[in-house]
Amino acid sequence: MSDRWKEYLRENQDRYLAELVELLRIPSVSTDPAYQEEVRRAAVWVANRMRQAGIADAQVMETDGHPVVYGEWMKAEDKPTLLIYGHYDVQPADPLEEWSSPPFEPRIKNGRVYARGASDMKGNILLPIIACEALLATTGTLPVNVKFLFEGEEETGSPSLEAFIAKHRQQLACDLVVIADGGVGSEEEPVVTTARRGMASLQLKVKSADTDMHSGFGGGLAPNAIHALTQILDSMRDAEGRILVDGFYDEVRPLTSAEREKIAAFPLHLDEFKTNTGIEDFFGEPEYTPQERVTARPTLDVNGVWGGYQGEGTKTVIPCEAYAKITCRLVPDQKPEQICHHLQLHIEQHAPKHVKVTVEMGPGADPYRLPDDHPGLFALERVLEEVSGNPVKRRWEGSTVPVKSVFKRILAAESVTLGGSQGDRTHAPNEFYRLNNFERIQKAFCLFFYEYGSRD
Amino acid sequence: MSDRWKEYLRENQDRYLAELVELLRIPSVSTDPAYQEEVRRAAVWVANRMRQAGIADAQVMETDGHPVVYGEWMKAEDKPTLLIYGHYDVQPADPLEEWSSPPFEPRIKNGRVYARGASDMKGNILLPIIACEALLATTGTLPVNVKFLFEGEEETGSPSLEAFIAKHRQQLACDLVVIADGGVGSEEEPVVTTARRGMASLQLKVKSADTDMHSGFGGGLAPNAIHALTQILDSMRDAEGRILVDGFYDEVRPLTSAEREKIAAFPLHLDEFKTNTGIEDFFGEPEYTPQERVTARPTLDVNGVWGGYQGEGTKTVIPCEAYAKITCRLVPDQKPEQICHHLQLHIEQHAPKHVKVTVEMGPGADPYRLPDDHPGLFALERVLEEVSGNPVKRRWEGSTVPVKSVFKRILAAESVTLGGSQGDRTHAPNEFYRLNNFERIQKAFCLFFYEYGSRD
Repeated sequence: MSDRWKEYLRENQDRYLAELVELLRIPSVSTDPAYQEEVRRAAVWVANRMRQAGIADAQVMETDGHPVVYGEWMKAEDKPTLLIYGHYDVQPADPLEEWSSPPFEPRIKNGRVYARGASDMKGNILLPIIACEALLATTGTLPVNVKFLFEGEEETGSPSLEAFIAKHRQQLACDLVVIADGGVGSEEEPVVTTARRGMASLQLKVKSADTDMHSGFGGGLAPNAIHALTQILDSMRDAEGRILVDGFYDEVRPLTSAEREKIAAFPLHLDEFKTNTGIEDFFGEPEYTPQERVTARPTLDVNGVWGGYQGEGTKTVIPCEAYAKITCRLVPDQKPEQICHHLQLHIEQHAPKHVKVTVEMGPGADPYRLPDDHPGLFALERVLEEVSGNPVKRRWEGSTVPVKSVFKRILAAESVTLGGSQGDRTHAPNEFYRLNNFERIQKAFCLFFYEYGSRD
Repeated sequence: MSDRWKEYLRENQDRYLAELVELLRIPSVSTDPAYQEEVRRAAVWVANRMRQAGIADAQVMETDGHPVVYGEWMKAEDKPTLLIYGHYDVQPADPLEEWSSPPFEPRIKNGRVYARGASDMKGNILLPIIACEALLATTGTLPVNVKFLFEGEEETGSPSLEAFIAKHRQQLACDLVVIADGGVGSEEEPVVTTARRGMASLQLKVKSADTDMHSGFGGGLAPNAIHALTQILDSMRDAEGRILVDGFYDEVRPLTSAEREKIAAFPLHLDEFKTNTGIEDFFGEPEYTPQERVTARPTLDVNGVWGGYQGEGTKTVIPCEAYAKITCRLVPDQKPEQICHHLQLHIEQHAPKHVKVTVEMGPGADPYRLPDDHPGLFALERVLEEVSGNPVKRRWEGSTVPVKSVFKRILAAESVTLGGSQGDRTHAPNEFYRLNNFERIQKAFCLFFYEYGSRD
């Protein structure tokens, strides 16, 4: 194996960074219809970039929602096939006023690039493309077959992706999926992720009247939609964060002592977490450690709430409508549909009788666990040890990559995660990407192609 | 007394309605700084209209906030002096999408004019001005001395008015205040208001971290500002609407049997209320009747709540900030400062320990009761019986006219209410004014000037 590609990567880093900045400038916010054209613009950008790297057939393919970018390089005869998955869409940028610089005007400072989508996952999406480019440019070939599947709806729960995968089941057939969304820890403490939590989501509307009322004429008579919503939301968790929804914990696989020991051994930096986020103290089920709660326990969080008058000054109104958005993180063997069903029953049972409640289910995802003896896992561990020079640990992660369970179910393929994110203000204002991970994980992709391509 | 003014009123109704529409077109929203110039434009319009009516010195006077419109006619020697109070500002119009026609493009339909401020109180503000015009134009004089005081900050709790009244204490000296804000019931069931509730208000902010967090990385670790806010708000009332804030009811004067009988005799149309508002059932302290609760009992309502993601779709965020606006209606002998103090203590005691809570006091107003044997009350009752042909009842009202207690304290003057509003979607979308009240209450003002001017 020639090492010329390492030099090639080194020589081209300035260009790669300029390309990352260009991609970050596109506000591909998939959850907001106002950005629909920007989402497509990002897809076209990525497809062009793939063709430039040597994935000659890379193209934008339609779905019922935002398009998919697909491309493949299949000339490595008798070699295994990797399917590289990622997404080119990003979360909404609000609250805008908390950004130190505009979210779609990338700012480079202290070895980081700050922008919405930097960490999740426009930095990462370039890594496997650049790796292919480097290998093709310097060796004329790749040591594995590679398929790329980049979607534009990950941040809305991938509503069109499952149908797309099912429809193109044969085209997408592979030996292993590489999820480029997420990361592999720091250089000092490399990790591979072997579990992800699932997700359930819903929106709740409380309606107490046909019209808002003046509290001088209705105060004492009229039910208040916000009070009713408050009552419902407050009934869902106890003061210590345990979830009080009947049936919520029924399917949760209990943690074994061995699992609890492994979690305890994992160096999660709690003090650093506090410093970075400004929280006073951790919060959640006291029967579990913070490490356990954030990776191996299910959660219920209200993500947004609104109703009544939110402007300047005072308005003496009794609001007739109030809304909340809720998401849950799930662990094996919870199912999103079942959890939504439990939530809906709970909401109906805890709604005051004088209000109408409407529950709208949102996107969901099954939890995922990779078998501990999977060959893709061993290959990834060897590569990470080489690019970091440090021993690699396995961890469970608390966030969700919904497609892992979809790939498993439809393509019968397991997944590993390889990316450069370290969870740096992902989904929050002042999201950033660490540039020291950029070249290092490009290298890791090249090595992983060789490592996985040489398996028996 | 000549009756020529009645004819004059009749002949000019089309012009008066056109003027009302003109005034309603000015979006004088005092709570929102974006409308500052429109508020001033409304003040100038009213001053001009007063001069046109014969109040020669009518002028716009500065305060620390929105201006006051002042004018007087003081040529009735040895006659008593009325101070007519009103406001030319209006509530915000949102939620805009619930208006059947734009709030500042008045629509006349079925004997009503629909617009923000129609009922509260741009219809009413014209009544005493028109009454003076009619009397001055037809008789050359007025049977009482009249002072006009129209402010532009009523909907923000009149922050500058008290200082203005104190500063101009001698200029504003009067025998009786006539509050033109509100109404005197329908033609069939005329009523005079002898009590108003007071008000206390505050805004509450909950902060749980420096930054919003991704629930995949923080779910199970991070406190959630919305859950904490929910906990605090839910602790303030029980499931039946009783207020659980320590000390809240301490100063409330108990209702006597005689008072409860009077309230019970008052024909409040509960079924009509339900039909108009679309509420399923009344809500509040079961120990009191709905009529008692809406006039003679204090209330606590959350007027607005917000936090986290409120846009389209799903955002898996743990919000670090959440807000609520709260107002209370007060009854004798509750004091707004004391009630805010009780609320603040309650909030601090019920806030989860891992969040920071900030409470900002808003505008307040004392409750008001007019003595049952006041001569202004008798004069008003005689006038209303004449213009309606029906017996007049006395009632307590649940809404607040903050200046009543201010006039009492600073000018030592009691107040009566005379206006044409019947609480028709006041502060709500599709606010309207009944045009049959427009001419009728113009007439009532003329008669009241004669009646009160002839008192011994």
